Amino acid sequence: MTRNVLLIDWGRRAEKLLKELSTYTEKGPGVTRLPFSPEHKQALALLQKVMLNAGLSVSLDNAGTLIGRLEGPPDSKTFMMGSHQDSVRQGGGYDGIMGVILPIMALEKLKEESYKLPFSVEILAFADEEGVRFPTALIGSRALAGTYDSSVLSMVDSDGISLKQALTQFGLRPDQISHIKRSPNDIIGFLETHIEQGPILEESDEAVGVVTAICGIERHQIVIKGETGHAGTLPMSGRRDALVGAASIITEVNRMGQEETDLRSTVGSLSLEPNVVNAVPREVRMTAEFRSPNDDKRQSAGEHLHDFAKKIAAGTGLNISCSLTYEQMAQPCDKTMSVILEKSILSFGGRAISLPSGATHDASAIADLCPISMLFVRCRDGVSHKPEEFASSDDMGMAISVLATFLKQVQNLS
Amino acid sequence: MTRNVLLIDWGRRAEKLLKELSTYTEKGPGVTRLPFSPEHKQALALLQKVMLNAGLSVSLDNAGTLIGRLEGPPDSKTFMMGSHQDSVRQGGGYDGIMGVILPIMALEKLKEESYKLPFSVEILAFADEEGVRFPTALIGSRALAGTYDSSVLSMVDSDGISLKQALTQFGLRPDQISHIKRSPNDIIGFLETHIEQGPILEESDEAVGVVTAICGIERHQIVIKGETGHAGTLPMSGRRDALVGAASIITEVNRMGQEETDLRSTVGSLSLEPNVVNAVPREVRMTAEFRSPNDDKRQSAGEHLHDFAKKIAAGTGLNISCSLTYEQMAQPCDKTMSVILEKSILSFGGRAISLPSGATHDASAIADLCPISMLFVRCRDGVSHKPEEFASSDDMGMAISVLATFLKQVQNLS
Repeated sequence: MTRNVLLIDWGRRAEKLLKELSTYTEKGPGVTRLPFSPEHKQALALLQKVMLNAGLSVSLDNAGTLIGRLEGPPDSKTFMMGSHQDSVRQGGGYDGIMGVILPIMALEKLKEESYKLPFSVEILAFADEEGVRFPTALIGSRALAGTYDSSVLSMVDSDGISLKQALTQFGLRPDQISHIKRSPNDIIGFLETHIEQGPILEESDEAVGVVTAICGIERHQIVIKGETGHAGTLPMSGRRDALVGAASIITEVNRMGQEETDLRSTVGSLSLEPNVVNAVPREVRMTAEFRSPNDDKRQSAGEHLHDFAKKIAAGTGLNISCSLTYEQMAQPCDKTMSVILEKSILSFGGRAISLPSGATHDASAIADLCPISMLFVRCRDGVSHKPEEFASSDDMGMAISVLATFLKQVQNLS
Repeated sequence: MTRNVLLIDWGRRAEKLLKELSTYTEKGPGVTRLPFSPEHKQALALLQKVMLNAGLSVSLDNAGTLIGRLEGPPDSKTFMMGSHQDSVRQGGGYDGIMGVILPIMALEKLKEESYKLPFSVEILAFADEEGVRFPTALIGSRALAGTYDSSVLSMVDSDGISLKQALTQFGLRPDQISHIKRSPNDIIGFLETHIEQGPILEESDEAVGVVTAICGIERHQIVIKGETGHAGTLPMSGRRDALVGAASIITEVNRMGQEETDLRSTVGSLSLEPNVVNAVPREVRMTAEFRSPNDDKRQSAGEHLHDFAKKIAAGTGLNISCSLTYEQMAQPCDKTMSVILEKSILSFGGRAISLPSGATHDASAIADLCPISMLFVRCRDGVSHKPEEFASSDDMGMAISVLATFLKQVQNLS
């Protein structure tokens, strides 16, 4: 007797599994599931069960990535899907882990349909993307892409446990991580499914959307030095108030992002000295961050910041230094895969809207190995990294259908 | 044999005494002389010697104010002069204490000239004006004016010693402080001599200047509440960035002071949350301070701040609350005394420029008892409250001459 696949509500299946996974957490609100922890082990046990049920063979690589493999025809290439199992502290139950569950459901759906793919598929559950426990991240995806740097093994967590010790205690062999590297010739592509972490899909009334690119990022450290003085006795004329200079720069950084499409610009961190009610601020240290799917736009923004700071310094007598402290290039998503995703979404009545990813994902690291693509799922109020993080079972059901249909078309890629 | 008064360089006398007084300090850079400390006791011993030498009778009241009295004709009223003996931590050797030494020198000068004043004079060395050791200040001057509040006695210093204990250990009787109060009928006026703590006299190339008023002060606590979000995933449109709202207010507060004469306006303190490079700031707490010799101008500034904050809130969707947390009315200096001071300065070749005092002084408290006036002495680079604080012996010599000449004219007051 064959089961009627139409009777299975895949979205509710995913929801039930994600709820169970969300119980594998440290104590406290929301989900706290750090890599190489007892909670990580619990999550892997359940994921393995689900993978086996979908007909996948399961293994754990030495970077802690759980791999569920659906074997295709002999000598066929492999298509990869997945995301990360870990959460931030007191985060939610969808960021990362949903991108592991939904593609497994998609494969299970194809199995129910007895649909045979002409390639192998691997579902990946990376150990660590958030970088919360150790001051590094993306170990699993970098290991696959061959960009893993073994110097991170000596980094320690807040308990003084090194990454190397944590991996070893988890039953892994950190000295073998360099062998995880895959050959680009064997891999067709990678698709990551993730909650949007922003409000665009919700505002557009769409369940899912196609990511155009993972934004490039640059960060600047801005140090403004002026002169302090008694707020009562120092005349206004001739003041070199570091906070007044900072205000001009904050206003300009915001204006840039408001006026330029595809640019997000933020002053997120600021400190000042002496920081008392009756003294003119002598020094302000602050950050500016620019993100864009378009590297040229982002770099122009950074250059404009430096020019603007020079102008303010010249006009006020403040000493202002800006330095680029971090840069990560944009990772455009593969156009062919994006078109297949769009067609798949359209076939289910969606509008297939495109949007950039402002946040970084495992896909950024996998981009060094093969073409990448991303499917975003609407999340309530655009919220992520909080206990309130939520994606509906209906939206997840839509995503599963889109993924299954996508996989049927991927053969066109190779 | 009479001494030739012309041979005495009063400025150098003052400098020598101030140097000696600056050795009565806690260890560390500059001068740290807190009230009711061993260093305070050392300073009082030297001041007493100097007062006695100038022909004054010396007493210590129960608030720790050292009083050197020059007795005038029977039933004559009293003119008061002086300032405070205490310093901030790692401050200089002039702020306060110079205003005790210079009028003693002026009386000594009159004594050398055998000039008899038609009234009594008291030189006051207040224990505490800076408010560094205890979270209160102006005990001595408030006690004289009858505005002393005994509830301050329970305040404790960083070692847990209460003000009451400190006074008692200093040999004083805190329960008697309320009897220090003077009758306005007995007092002609009060003149405080003080370093300017600002750059105006230096920029004007003048040794001394006449204070028009001690500025009124108001302080506002501004709390700006917006919404945080991931700096990469939150679109620019619709952001409610608390720091962007803060920047508008900082710019406006500065503009107000730059464009309005007689108004000093400062945002001195600011903190934000979450204060990380990749998150939109949710909340900013900051202060705004306005000072003016003109209470109307100051109050208008405060009202404008509140209106401006409302406008920004309406335009940005931020929630902004402004509250007045402190207000102190301006204390205008007595016009008659100011004119006498000006004439005296002019007679020594000065231009007798007028300027407001942005900082508060003992004279603010004495204003509740009698008419007040203030003579400012130029200080190098406008610096105070630092070891580098400096007034030249030439300028102090000029101030002593001005004070002595002033005293000869004060009879016109009563």
